[in-house]
Amino acid sequence: MKLKTKKTLSVPGFVAGGMACGIKKNGKPDLALIVSETPATAAGLFTTNQVVSPTVTVTRQHLQAAKSVRAIVANSGNANACTGPSGDRACRDMVVLTAKQLGVTERDVLVASTGVIGVPFPLAPVEKGLPQLAGNLVANGWDDAARAILTTDLVIKTACVEYGGVTVGGITKGSGMIHPNMATMLAFVGTNLKIGKADLKAALKVANEYTFNRINVDGDTSTNDMILVLANGQAGNAPVKKGTQAFKEFVAALTEVCRSLAFQIVKDGEGATKFVTVGVKGAKTEKQALRVSRAVADSKLVQTALFGEDPNWGRIIAAVGYAGVPLKPEKIDIAFNGTPLVKNGAPVAGLSVAALHKQMKAKDLRIDIGLNLGRASAETYTCDLSYDYVRINAEYTT
Amino acid sequence: MKLKTKKTLSVPGFVAGGMACGIKKNGKPDLALIVSETPATAAGLFTTNQVVSPTVTVTRQHLQAAKSVRAIVANSGNANACTGPSGDRACRDMVVLTAKQLGVTERDVLVASTGVIGVPFPLAPVEKGLPQLAGNLVANGWDDAARAILTTDLVIKTACVEYGGVTVGGITKGSGMIHPNMATMLAFVGTNLKIGKADLKAALKVANEYTFNRINVDGDTSTNDMILVLANGQAGNAPVKKGTQAFKEFVAALTEVCRSLAFQIVKDGEGATKFVTVGVKGAKTEKQALRVSRAVADSKLVQTALFGEDPNWGRIIAAVGYAGVPLKPEKIDIAFNGTPLVKNGAPVAGLSVAALHKQMKAKDLRIDIGLNLGRASAETYTCDLSYDYVRINAEYTT
Repeated sequence: MKLKTKKTLSVPGFVAGGMACGIKKNGKPDLALIVSETPATAAGLFTTNQVVSPTVTVTRQHLQAAKSVRAIVANSGNANACTGPSGDRACRDMVVLTAKQLGVTERDVLVASTGVIGVPFPLAPVEKGLPQLAGNLVANGWDDAARAILTTDLVIKTACVEYGGVTVGGITKGSGMIHPNMATMLAFVGTNLKIGKADLKAALKVANEYTFNRINVDGDTSTNDMILVLANGQAGNAPVKKGTQAFKEFVAALTEVCRSLAFQIVKDGEGATKFVTVGVKGAKTEKQALRVSRAVADSKLVQTALFGEDPNWGRIIAAVGYAGVPLKPEKIDIAFNGTPLVKNGAPVAGLSVAALHKQMKAKDLRIDIGLNLGRASAETYTCDLSYDYVRINAEYTT
Repeated sequence: MKLKTKKTLSVPGFVAGGMACGIKKNGKPDLALIVSETPATAAGLFTTNQVVSPTVTVTRQHLQAAKSVRAIVANSGNANACTGPSGDRACRDMVVLTAKQLGVTERDVLVASTGVIGVPFPLAPVEKGLPQLAGNLVANGWDDAARAILTTDLVIKTACVEYGGVTVGGITKGSGMIHPNMATMLAFVGTNLKIGKADLKAALKVANEYTFNRINVDGDTSTNDMILVLANGQAGNAPVKKGTQAFKEFVAALTEVCRSLAFQIVKDGEGATKFVTVGVKGAKTEKQALRVSRAVADSKLVQTALFGEDPNWGRIIAAVGYAGVPLKPEKIDIAFNGTPLVKNGAPVAGLSVAALHKQMKAKDLRIDIGLNLGRASAETYTCDLSYDYVRINAEYTT
C-alpha cells in the first residue's frame, strides 16, 4: 500500500463550505457545513468530561440511532454549553434547520459547537446564514469549513491522503482556550471508502489512540470535544471488514490524517514555540509507558524549561518519579534530541551544557526516557509553556 | 484551650541557627541546624516521588531506628539528588560531621537538602562551616535557620503558637522550582510537649492532611520533600496519648502551625499574585470533594484566568467535569468570593461582570463549588499562574 499525501483537501462525494453568519462579533467565519452527497456510515469519539454541550448529546444519539448520516454542521463563537434548556432547544433547532436546508432527516445531521461557555446560543444568525451556506457547498470547500471552526487557533488545519482509489481527508481545530470558555478540540474526517458503521468505529478508535489521544497542550478536556468520521462508500470497494488487510490499510491512512491534524494542533497551541515528543521505552506495559510520558508532557515545570531552552533533566526525572508507575530510579536514562543526559539515574559526565542549550533552540525537540524495566514503549506530544500562553489565557475579554 | 500566636519563634529546649557556608555561589545562607538540648521523639512525612535524595532515605532510616533524636541539619543550594553513590556518601558524611560537632550519635541526626538536582554534593563547605554554626546556636536562631533553607522563596516562613505551657513552632520553605532542579518543600517543627513517637506521627499525619497536603502550586512533587517534627518533652507533661483531649489540643496547635506555614508557601509561590481557596461541598465523600477541588486548583486554565482577574466559571465547571468524580452537571453551583455565578449548571441571570471583575482584584480569592450530591466537603489552596511563574521557571541559569 502506497500512501500519498495530497496538498489540497477534497474527498470524492463530499462538498463543504464555511461562512461568517454573525455568531462572532468580529465578522470572522463561524459556521461550517460538510455534506456527503450520498448516505455515509459514521463514527464518533467524544470528550470524557461529564459536563457536556447538548451538541455532544445529540450527535451521540444520532450516531447510535442512524444507519447512515449525511452532514456535519458546526459553529464557532459559542460552545452552547452550560446554557440550560434553551441551549438544548437551540441545538435541536440548528439540526432541524440544517436538515431542512439539505432535504434530509434530522438524524442525518451531526452537530458541533465551540466557543464561549454559558452564553445563550444565538440561533438567528445560524437560521439566516444556513440557506446561503447550503447553497454554496463545493468539493474544495473544506478549507472554508476549517476556517469557520477556528477559535484562538492561528491557522487552519487540514490533512488528506490517498491510496488505491481511496481518499481520507479532514479538518480540525485546536485545544486552545479563551475566555470565558474552554475551547474545544473538533475534528471532522471524510472518506470515500465503503465500510460498515462498527468497523469504522473500530478504525477510528485505533487511529485516535495514537494521535489525538497522545497530544497534550494543557491537560484540560473540554465540554465539547468530538472527532467524527464519515464514510460514503463512493470508492466502490467491497465493504472493508475489521481484521482484513484492507482494514489495516484504511487504519494506516486514517491514522496518518489524524496524526497530521493532531500535530498541527500542538504546533498551533496557545503561545507554543516548540513541538516536543516525549518518548518512553523500557516500560513493563504500554499503559505504564504512556503514564510516564504524560506526566512529563503535562508538567508545568518541564514545559516552562522547554520554553527557556533549558535541558533541565532534573524536572523530567522528578516527573517520571511521581507518574505513579513502579520504577527503579537507578535504571532511568534520559536523552534530549538523542544526546544522553542521564544514565542509570545519574548525570552523564562531561556534558557540554552550551552544546545542549544550542540544540534546544530547535523548534522540534525530543525527550527520550528509558526505564529499563521491560519492552513496552509510548510517545506523547506536547508544546512548551510560554509567556504567550499566560497572556492569551489571562486576557480579560468579556 | 486557648491557642496564642507568638510573633517570634522559639521553642523551649531548642536552639537553632543558619549560615552561609559556601554551597551557594552567591554567598547567601545555605546551612541550617536545629538542635534539641535533650533527646526528642521525632516523626516525619516524606515525598511520594519514587526518585528520592539520599537525605530522604537516611532520615527515614533514623526515624525508624531511633527512639529519640537530637538534631536536624539541612542545606540549600544542592539537593543531593540523582548524584549516585558519591551523593549517598556525602549525605552520610554530612550526618557524621554534624553528630561529631554536637557530640551525639549519627542516629540522633536527621538530614535534609534542597537545591540543584544532579550536581555532585560539595561536602567541603559543610565540613568547614559546621563547627562555626554548631558553636553559635541560640534559642531565637530559627529565623536564621529558615533563611538558610530558602531557594527561590522570597521571604522566610515561620510560625509559632502556645497553649498552656506548650509551644509549637516551625519553619518551612516553598515548593518553588528553579533550574536545574525541582526544589523542595521542607518543614521543620519543634515542640516542648512530651509525646511518644507513634502518637507524634499520628498527630503529624492529621495536621499535614489538612494543611501541607492541601496546597498546590504547580502539582509537581519533588525528590526531597519532607516534614519533620521533634518533641523534647520539656513542658513536663504526662506523655500525651492518642484519643485524649490533650492529644486533640496538640493536633489543633500543630495543625495551626502547619496551616500557617503551608499558606505562606502558597503566598510566596513563584510569581503568585493571588491566594486562592477552592472549596467543594455537597460531595458524596470527602475524597471525591478533594479530587474535584484539586482538579480545579491544578488547572492551568483556571490559574491563568485567576491571574487575569477573570471570573471564568466555564473553565472551573470544565475542570469539575474532568475530575473523575460522578456528577450531575445540572446540579453544579459555583460562586466567586460568595457571589453565585452558576446555579444548577447554568449561569445566574443578571450578573454584573464589572462588579465581579472588581472583586477579583482582591489578593485573597475564594471559589466555592457545590455538587449537591451529598454532605462531604474539602478545601485546597492554590495560587495563580502568572508571567513571572513562566519567567522564573524558564530562566536558563546553569
